[in-house]
Amino acid sequence: KEKEEEQRIRTELDRVVDFWLKYSHDKEHGGFFNCLGKDGKVYDELKYVWLQGRQVWMYSRLYRTVERFHRPEILEAAKSGAAFLQKFARVQASSGPGKCAFCLTRDGRTVKFQRTIFSECFYVMAMDELSRITQDKEIMMDRLIFWVQTDSSDLGRPQLPGDLPINSMAVPMMLLCLVDQLTEGRTDVAEKYKDLSGWCVERILQHIQRDGKAILENVTLNGKELPGCQGRLQNPGHALEAGWFLLQYALKKGDVQLQKTAVDKFMEIPFHTGWDKQHGGLFYFLDVDGHCPTQLEWNMKLWWPHCEALIAYLMAYSHSREPVLLDRFKQIYDYTFTHFADEEHGEWFGYLSRQGELVLDFKGGPFKGFFHVPRCLYTCEKLLDGLLERQDS
Amino acid sequence: KEKEEEQRIRTELDRVVDFWLKYSHDKEHGGFFNCLGKDGKVYDELKYVWLQGRQVWMYSRLYRTVERFHRPEILEAAKSGAAFLQKFARVQASSGPGKCAFCLTRDGRTVKFQRTIFSECFYVMAMDELSRITQDKEIMMDRLIFWVQTDSSDLGRPQLPGDLPINSMAVPMMLLCLVDQLTEGRTDVAEKYKDLSGWCVERILQHIQRDGKAILENVTLNGKELPGCQGRLQNPGHALEAGWFLLQYALKKGDVQLQKTAVDKFMEIPFHTGWDKQHGGLFYFLDVDGHCPTQLEWNMKLWWPHCEALIAYLMAYSHSREPVLLDRFKQIYDYTFTHFADEEHGEWFGYLSRQGELVLDFKGGPFKGFFHVPRCLYTCEKLLDGLLERQDS
Repeated sequence: KEKEEEQRIRTELDRVVDFWLKYSHDKEHGGFFNCLGKDGKVYDELKYVWLQGRQVWMYSRLYRTVERFHRPEILEAAKSGAAFLQKFARVQASSGPGKCAFCLTRDGRTVKFQRTIFSECFYVMAMDELSRITQDKEIMMDRLIFWVQTDSSDLGRPQLPGDLPINSMAVPMMLLCLVDQLTEGRTDVAEKYKDLSGWCVERILQHIQRDGKAILENVTLNGKELPGCQGRLQNPGHALEAGWFLLQYALKKGDVQLQKTAVDKFMEIPFHTGWDKQHGGLFYFLDVDGHCPTQLEWNMKLWWPHCEALIAYLMAYSHSREPVLLDRFKQIYDYTFTHFADEEHGEWFGYLSRQGELVLDFKGGPFKGFFHVPRCLYTCEKLLDGLLERQDS
Repeated sequence: KEKEEEQRIRTELDRVVDFWLKYSHDKEHGGFFNCLGKDGKVYDELKYVWLQGRQVWMYSRLYRTVERFHRPEILEAAKSGAAFLQKFARVQASSGPGKCAFCLTRDGRTVKFQRTIFSECFYVMAMDELSRITQDKEIMMDRLIFWVQTDSSDLGRPQLPGDLPINSMAVPMMLLCLVDQLTEGRTDVAEKYKDLSGWCVERILQHIQRDGKAILENVTLNGKELPGCQGRLQNPGHALEAGWFLLQYALKKGDVQLQKTAVDKFMEIPFHTGWDKQHGGLFYFLDVDGHCPTQLEWNMKLWWPHCEALIAYLMAYSHSREPVLLDRFKQIYDYTFTHFADEEHGEWFGYLSRQGELVLDFKGGPFKGFFHVPRCLYTCEKLLDGLLERQDS
């Protein structure tokens, strides 16, 4: 059975890579088109920096670590995307490296800045992965850490008396992911970021609330519950993603207690609260007290929480061989492959109604690029290969 | 039949007013709770300035113009809301009156600013309507006009090379609505804002595109189509709202050509393109070329486009007595009253799936307050009373 899933995943990854290679490259201005219809046609030319960075990262990672993707066209595409980012996404400020744009026109003019750190995070992720092939070095990581830990005023968010700083899951998760990226195979760098990864783990663990029975998306800086909708928000897909980031870190460190926390708290809780018992699939947002979330899309089924859940449970199973974890993987796998994959044109759909019907039919959009799907397929392929190898031997 | 509808609308308005009087008043800090569950329970204490201003406006308008609402508790509530806004929503800047916050804590601390003019618009609308009862004058209208027509840099939106100023439907619509508010019964003020209303009408008419066959939400400053998703966006409810603003203005001016344009272009086009032939109700967003919009909620049925459509068609029918316009009103009326009204607790639900099932069950939220529903019922009651009177005589 695992063999069959491995085959399906491998084929699907090939089709996803082909889709983006074929339709997303902007040969005139460099970089990638992000807004691709179900058949790959460009329906908007804006370029989103998160997605540009993620695509550079994914291409570079596939080129470096998967033999069948070690192809010149993939490396060239990664380099072209990186050049576009270096030329247009970064804005120099007098005080040093400035912010990255959130959105650019086709020819690289800035459309929008976000007052967060994520464009910069995906920029770092992209450049680090590519530098492992090209040996070029360009790191804005220290600036990021400064913004997160010392002074965020460069981000342009006004300090308002009713808007105190909070611990939002996204920030420590993202930094832990970056530390994992930067330290892979580099013991000197790992030493440099040791404190930072400890800080990230601590901040992530603060999201365990309600006597260990809930994972909340936003908490105070000292790990207490926040009032109102913001404080009660649950994002099951995000928690599951944090789960495998934590598990991966804990496995590297040999931290058995943290491995258990990653699975019990950041996988099992969001899976149980987030899975729709009536129609299947993971909800996008929930309120821990059962109020209706105010996000209009709260009950939709999005592709990426399912991608993260597949990685989380397969990683957890690979390590512990607990059959129940494999059952979860299979449950999510069945929903995901029957609902999101597109036999006709390749790549996956991204947005379904609660009932599982297609609501938005494009393959790429302002928040969906060449990232969650291929990262999931790539990681699952590796994990399954590992499992099958061990079975054979 | 119209008599029956008039009765239903009158009863519904009473129930809606009762709901907000009963559940939304913050007796401790002043102002109004906005986030009310289906049964009126407060589920979040944040106060949204758009909604605070709108509630002050609606209470004041009902008090002033509808005999059965000329009650001290309604006036007191309006005054309390206005006092809260005056104390906490406005932020003084060195250069004169500053921006209004978008969101406040329960006790009035600023949580968020928007880099748009709408908090200020609803503030002006509220204060003007209340001033018609109390005679207090406080107008920041001139500042608003300066931001829109001369220099928007106070709004804090950075000028970015890829983000050129556009003509977004919301701005001229909102200003036309404000001019109507400020000039009612005041010929001197009407004279003062004559040029502004002409400017608004011109800007609204620029949204007629595709040889008169489409109303687009965003166009260039000289009335050309914009590229990409932004340029192709249609918002049928917004166009219908602009329709009755235009019709009302054209009726006052006795401009027959503009009356026809208001109905033919800003009502009939969005009704025909926006009505869901399969499941009924008006879509939230559409793409003029049939691409899938990138807004996750594009196919949901929201309460407010239906409120605006009811006003639009009843106003159009009242004026012209074209039976087809009454048919449209009835079609929208049937969908609206069977889908949004809540027999059990009063007030209306706001957010349905494409199929018409309830997706968000609250009565008040960050974007739904005491405004579209009572304004619709109030306006329709007046229009129907006028029709019935003329039938009787």
